[in-house]
Amino acid sequence: MDDRDLLNVVMGIVGRDNCLDDCAVFPCGEQVMVATTDMLHRTTDFVPGMSDWQAGWMSAAVTLSDIASMGAAPKFLLIAVGLDDWKCLAGVMQGAKDCCTMFGAEIIGGDIDRHGELTVVTTGLGLVDKEHLVRRAGAKPGDLVCITGTPGQAQAWLDGYHQFEKALFEPQPRVREGQILGRAGISAMMDDSDGIALSLYDLMSVNGCGFALDSSRLPLAAGIPPAQARELALYGGGDYELIFTIPPGCYPVEGVPATVIGKVVATQSVTVDGNPLEKRGYQHRWE
Amino acid sequence: MDDRDLLNVVMGIVGRDNCLDDCAVFPCGEQVMVATTDMLHRTTDFVPGMSDWQAGWMSAAVTLSDIASMGAAPKFLLIAVGLDDWKCLAGVMQGAKDCCTMFGAEIIGGDIDRHGELTVVTTGLGLVDKEHLVRRAGAKPGDLVCITGTPGQAQAWLDGYHQFEKALFEPQPRVREGQILGRAGISAMMDDSDGIALSLYDLMSVNGCGFALDSSRLPLAAGIPPAQARELALYGGGDYELIFTIPPGCYPVEGVPATVIGKVVATQSVTVDGNPLEKRGYQHRWE
Repeated sequence: MDDRDLLNVVMGIVGRDNCLDDCAVFPCGEQVMVATTDMLHRTTDFVPGMSDWQAGWMSAAVTLSDIASMGAAPKFLLIAVGLDDWKCLAGVMQGAKDCCTMFGAEIIGGDIDRHGELTVVTTGLGLVDKEHLVRRAGAKPGDLVCITGTPGQAQAWLDGYHQFEKALFEPQPRVREGQILGRAGISAMMDDSDGIALSLYDLMSVNGCGFALDSSRLPLAAGIPPAQARELALYGGGDYELIFTIPPGCYPVEGVPATVIGKVVATQSVTVDGNPLEKRGYQHRWE
Repeated sequence: MDDRDLLNVVMGIVGRDNCLDDCAVFPCGEQVMVATTDMLHRTTDFVPGMSDWQAGWMSAAVTLSDIASMGAAPKFLLIAVGLDDWKCLAGVMQGAKDCCTMFGAEIIGGDIDRHGELTVVTTGLGLVDKEHLVRRAGAKPGDLVCITGTPGQAQAWLDGYHQFEKALFEPQPRVREGQILGRAGISAMMDDSDGIALSLYDLMSVNGCGFALDSSRLPLAAGIPPAQARELALYGGGDYELIFTIPPGCYPVEGVPATVIGKVVATQSVTVDGNPLEKRGYQHRWE
């Protein structure tokens, strides 16, 4: 039983339409508001060596990344903190605040709770003009598949390449890039927090098409043997890059460094160099 | 160190204005949106004997109560669930959905996570016309202090009066009453989830006045010795009634059964029958 199996349970109760994107969407005046929530824990998300400030930064960043992936501007964050040790609180709050300030959002509310381990739940709210909203659905055969930045660096730290500490400990959500892409005619977008492979399978589940990757085009983290770097890029979790599809005529997008890694195809399959891409990456599992 | 001490730490980082009400408030078209988040846990909030459905119901209800206390109509709920046992999920989600449906809200998003104990974080969003928004600040000397329903029943269950199971296990947020009160000219409002005493001290901290209670007017839970019922009403947690202040000329409010339990006074003090009211109730504490 993994988190994608459980998502099917949730879809049966709250409706499939409320589970398809990185954020929920509803009208707010003449714009639309996007909303998303994320739960992080000391044992599963805040790796040993992370400071309280970094735990707070990461907690805000993962939620701001979901907002970025809809093409929206982050506006507000609510933060619920479960604390085993009250002395963590100031660092966590300062980290979350600094991340919000960096990306244009404000902490407007929260909850404090006694709990067995540090647990932080951030809920982010963003705004976007309706015509610039980007969803996971919308990819069309012939579109290019692109990614910002260099994927696999967060997982590389976990595999011992400690030069990538900042990628894992202080992720930088692609807030500026998401908004530019939303105005540039892209057809679909999400973040790659569970790895490129799972992200593409998630995209396929809401699009009537598939994806063909060319492994020679994957941007690879420096200082790692290429075969391992390719593995990290495809299956590693903890990155917050944006994966998007875009009509060829709209690419490149000024102000958004990105790499074309494949194309959208008419068949419902995800391949790399013509072979099926393994459906694995970062997942929660239960017995 | 208790949760109100820690709130002072948070105020120092995110600003006092973002910590004063049951909900945050921001513009949304021609109305204002209110937003609030609450974290609940198996060991501290979901008492033994509660079903998964009731845990989900309670998780939604506590957040809808915060929205009600601003005079707003609940619209949307996001729900993050940390699970030790995945088999809890369907019950929790169904309970939360049924509570939302009962009170006019919709679950629009969430997160699922593996965790050491069942932890549910709900974030609620509501809408209200700006002129009908009610805050904690606004009480004026001479106003009446009122409460809906009969406080102390949830704590009574914890103290062995098991006829009050529904009050604790399936709290009914005063959503309808909150919106009527918001249109009826009341001056301040909050819910009494930590007990009447702590609620009045919270109200005093944002109002330049105090409160004088008359214990003979407290509505008391039936079947409990009066002295104990009075204690439960003043200091018990887990209720979701609305405490509000209202100019005498506006009382009673049609459609909202409530009891006058005291009045707003010019001095910054909280008294019961002329004596200082103890500042205690439901609080999280850390060593």
